[in-house]
Amino acid sequence: MRFKIGCRLAYQTESPVPFVFNIEAQRFEGQRIEREDLVLSPDVPIDRWTSEDAGNRYFRITPPAGPFTLDYSAIVEVTPSLGDAGAVKEIPIGRLPLPALRHLFPSRYCQSDRLERFALSTFGAIEPGYARVNAICNWIYEYVTYEGGVSDAMTSAFDIVTLRAGVCRDFAHLGISLCRALGIPARYVSAYAFRLQPPDFHAVFEAFLEGPAGPDWYIFDPTRMADPAGLVRIGIGHDAAEVAFCTAFGPMVSEKPEVWIEALEPAADPTVHAVRPEAGG
Amino acid sequence: MRFKIGCRLAYQTESPVPFVFNIEAQRFEGQRIEREDLVLSPDVPIDRWTSEDAGNRYFRITPPAGPFTLDYSAIVEVTPSLGDAGAVKEIPIGRLPLPALRHLFPSRYCQSDRLERFALSTFGAIEPGYARVNAICNWIYEYVTYEGGVSDAMTSAFDIVTLRAGVCRDFAHLGISLCRALGIPARYVSAYAFRLQPPDFHAVFEAFLEGPAGPDWYIFDPTRMADPAGLVRIGIGHDAAEVAFCTAFGPMVSEKPEVWIEALEPAADPTVHAVRPEAGG
Amino acid sequence: MRFKIGCRLAYQTESPVPFVFNIEAQRFEGQRIEREDLVLSPDVPIDRWTSEDAGNRYFRITPPAGPFTLDYSAIVEVTPSLGDAGAVKEIPIGRLPLPALRHLFPSRYCQSDRLERFALSTFGAIEPGYARVNAICNWIYEYVTYEGGVSDAMTSAFDIVTLRAGVCRDFAHLGISLCRALGIPARYVSAYAFRLQPPDFHAVFEAFLEGPAGPDWYIFDPTRMADPAGLVRIGIGHDAAEVAFCTAFGPMVSEKPEVWIEALEPAADPTVHAVRPEAGG
Amino acid sequence: MRFKIGCRLAYQTESPVPFVFNIEAQRFEGQRIEREDLVLSPDVPIDRWTSEDAGNRYFRITPPAGPFTLDYSAIVEVTPSLGDAGAVKEIPIGRLPLPALRHLFPSRYCQSDRLERFALSTFGAIEPGYARVNAICNWIYEYVTYEGGVSDAMTSAFDIVTLRAGVCRDFAHLGISLCRALGIPARYVSAYAFRLQPPDFHAVFEAFLEGPAGPDWYIFDPTRMADPAGLVRIGIGHDAAEVAFCTAFGPMVSEKPEVWIEALEPAADPTVHAVRPEAGG
Repeated sequence: MRFKIGCRLAYQTESPVPFVFNIEAQRFEGQRIEREDLVLSPDVPIDRWTSEDAGNRYFRITPPAGPFTLDYSAIVEVTPSLGDAGAVKEIPIGRLPLPALRHLFPSRYCQSDRLERFALSTFGAIEPGYARVNAICNWIYEYVTYEGGVSDAMTSAFDIVTLRAGVCRDFAHLGISLCRALGIPARYVSAYAFRLQPPDFHAVFEAFLEGPAGPDWYIFDPTRMADPAGLVRIGIGHDAAEVAFCTAFGPMVSEKPEVWIEALEPAADPTVHAVRPEAGG
Repeated sequence: MRFKIGCRLAYQTESPVPFVFNIEAQRFEGQRIEREDLVLSPDVPIDRWTSEDAGNRYFRITPPAGPFTLDYSAIVEVTPSLGDAGAVKEIPIGRLPLPALRHLFPSRYCQSDRLERFALSTFGAIEPGYARVNAICNWIYEYVTYEGGVSDAMTSAFDIVTLRAGVCRDFAHLGISLCRALGIPARYVSAYAFRLQPPDFHAVFEAFLEGPAGPDWYIFDPTRMADPAGLVRIGIGHDAAEVAFCTAFGPMVSEKPEVWIEALEPAADPTVHAVRPEAGG
Repeated sequence: MRFKIGCRLAYQTESPVPFVFNIEAQRFEGQRIEREDLVLSPDVPIDRWTSEDAGNRYFRITPPAGPFTLDYSAIVEVTPSLGDAGAVKEIPIGRLPLPALRHLFPSRYCQSDRLERFALSTFGAIEPGYARVNAICNWIYEYVTYEGGVSDAMTSAFDIVTLRAGVCRDFAHLGISLCRALGIPARYVSAYAFRLQPPDFHAVFEAFLEGPAGPDWYIFDPTRMADPAGLVRIGIGHDAAEVAFCTAFGPMVSEKPEVWIEALEPAADPTVHAVRPEAGG
Repeated sequence: MRFKIGCRLAYQTESPVPFVFNIEAQRFEGQRIEREDLVLSPDVPIDRWTSEDAGNRYFRITPPAGPFTLDYSAIVEVTPSLGDAGAVKEIPIGRLPLPALRHLFPSRYCQSDRLERFALSTFGAIEPGYARVNAICNWIYEYVTYEGGVSDAMTSAFDIVTLRAGVCRDFAHLGISLCRALGIPARYVSAYAFRLQPPDFHAVFEAFLEGPAGPDWYIFDPTRMADPAGLVRIGIGHDAAEVAFCTAFGPMVSEKPEVWIEALEPAADPTVHAVRPEAGG
């Protein structure tokens, strides 16, 4: 399925401030970029780096003081690998590919070590596999209210269990934490999200499970606000700390980002699917 | 300088439990392993993985129920690259090698985002460079008491600022957090530590700075309990979550680990030095 | 119903340390003390104070260095005022007796302000009244495991929501917090508890509700471990911080307390009841 | 010294919402109210309650839906009892009046139990007495920045140690916590504050110390923003949770409060003083 995606970001600085962005679509087997444009105004030199493990495309610029805008657009073909959820199992720790182990560790916003009892008492009795991760998403969807202005940049999964409200980032953090607490590797994914209303950068998560074709990262959206078949992946990380779309290392004023995604062909119905990254782990 | 290092770990389980260990010395330019022995009793198959980015040598075993011991010993030559601390500078974010950026992000135990004001008000006025990181270590050494039993596996750098007591792991977490909050990439290092009393696995941290020979990771030990020239590196991570010497995925009983390190030649005096990892970032 | 209650506490100090105790049964309309003995060994002078608002009987002693024991015993008649739970309502804030307002404020271990959304989303739709507080107790009983060694003296209600395990003190703190978050005044009660196994000081809570005979404090035990008709009240406070059975202001070693309570007449079955304090508020 | 004080508060509701206010000056030996006016618009019935222990004057109203304003003004004579700070001592726990003990307990925003090590390591070596509490205030003044918008209604003393910024309420919470951690009873005081710029409700704290004339509550303002001789006391509590100037039990919109205080005679210079409450404890 092909999508036209993009964003327009605008900032104002009073001195040259370094910015690091992670807004470009990833390149991997299940996600092909047909064309892509990045326009900076004023035009400034770009330092680029694509992380080896995750494939995140970071770039850094240091615009001069004053107004600064960034326009990104791309045409991307996404091939979600649809699977039979019932056949998707958890992988026992004893035979988990070792590079996936790091996705069991707690991180800044996903303190899985502090959520172990909650995870076990709430989801411990559920049949391991895709259905259990789905049960986690159902719990989050049922008990956590999607609402802006309640959580903030300091809010972690531990807080969300009691706060019971947050945005996509918080939903993903809680899902990740509960998976890790149950021994399921999980990671954070930022994405352009088809059908998300209002359009914005979205956050979902992936769990490392095993389907008939082998181990794979399966994507989950506990907000249920986006079409799972319409997620164009930007960044992968332990949690939001690693894949902010913009990090400014100095004072600046930003405008509200404009983000868009539209289907270039008739869209199918949402369905369960696995996204295959280039490299495991 | 050559060291003989080793450890003996003993566990008891009532069913087969997967264990992941990270106890073997890293291999990199500044650290050469002359010989090495790993004896498991009972002998069981080993899965190995060396992380590409950090060079951590993980291995996994699943011993049968019952008692289990692990004996590791090695002879390692360490070549700390001594430098002139006064010439070692911080690297402005605008020209920091991009792979190092990830070491600015907050992590489970190093919530640098919550320590920014504390870092700036306490260390903001100090001349950037090696001396500033050293001032951070001095502060920790002066204001945090080295004492077991006060902190635990949940304790983070944020807690330590007020708790004012902890062990090497807590000292390292606080040092890392304060560096990151000031824009200095920093990471956690586990090590065999010469002259550490009583002998144990040690934790220190590295800051990414720039000496006359270019950017490098410089090692710091805010506990001041080990000889900086006698650190045999085991693991590198965002924080302790990534480099536990042992992670057991099930119930077990452990004995107190025995850890040792001895110099195979007369030891020089402790001094400022940088350890060069194989791969940057 | 008449009970024989008592405790034996033993301590060892290396210098004179002030101790404050709150172990004696309260005196109020529904609780009459027939006889009472307090034996200190060695015998030392006692400073006494009974708090005006709560009726807590505190006493302070400063035994000389060395071993020290305290034996308390009493015969107490308790008259729980049994009521028809269905007729017991919540009192709207607009006509709550003003002295009860302070029992809506958050306290050290009962951060009701941080539990508001959780309380509203979980219990907001339940019919206000005795049944709603009972639903809170049911939730705690169902989702929190009674288990020692998981929580500690720092653990608060906010932690318990996610920790999902604790002891009577934690159960009471969570019950109190949820009530306050819903606008129901609630307070902490320490007690000798009939049928509690193993015997120990117990913690329950009271909610301020309105029965056919007017506003009153109704007692709740979310652990369901004691007989509600067999609670001999010791202290009342915002939370455990105010009614520790022993507070030592210096280093000491304590033995495990012995606590006992036995019925002096055949005991009836547990049932819903309200305990009337001397003074409201 | 005589002051004219007052405030104007304005709210808007969409349904009848109960409000509880604590804005009126206390009455006690050192603070005499010459005249006082309270005008509600629209005029609605008032429920009043003055707390026995603290002397706080609470009142409750439930205005009809729509706009609502409250105008309070008073002329108050304040007689701070000036003392010789050098002669003011701490009171050993062993002979502290027992009612004062409750001011040693941790509370919602003053978790003195979590600050013990910090308090002891930072202030443990200072000579006990007025000077030590003053040293606490000096530390707060030096290391915590007075700045709005950093802390919020959830921020506690524990957070402030690391956050290093806050408003008067946070300064008071930290001062109280450090005193309690050192065994000095301390409590929160809300006040009209002469010379505070910009004018607002102010928060300071009191420590229970012993001067030549006996035990007394001594007032401290770690913000150093008000004239200690110009504090007109409104409320006393364990912390801010108990003496909010306004608590609304339902949705409402408020305007920024107008608060004023002016001296009705030439003002003397700020100096050390003790304010005597009617009732101790």
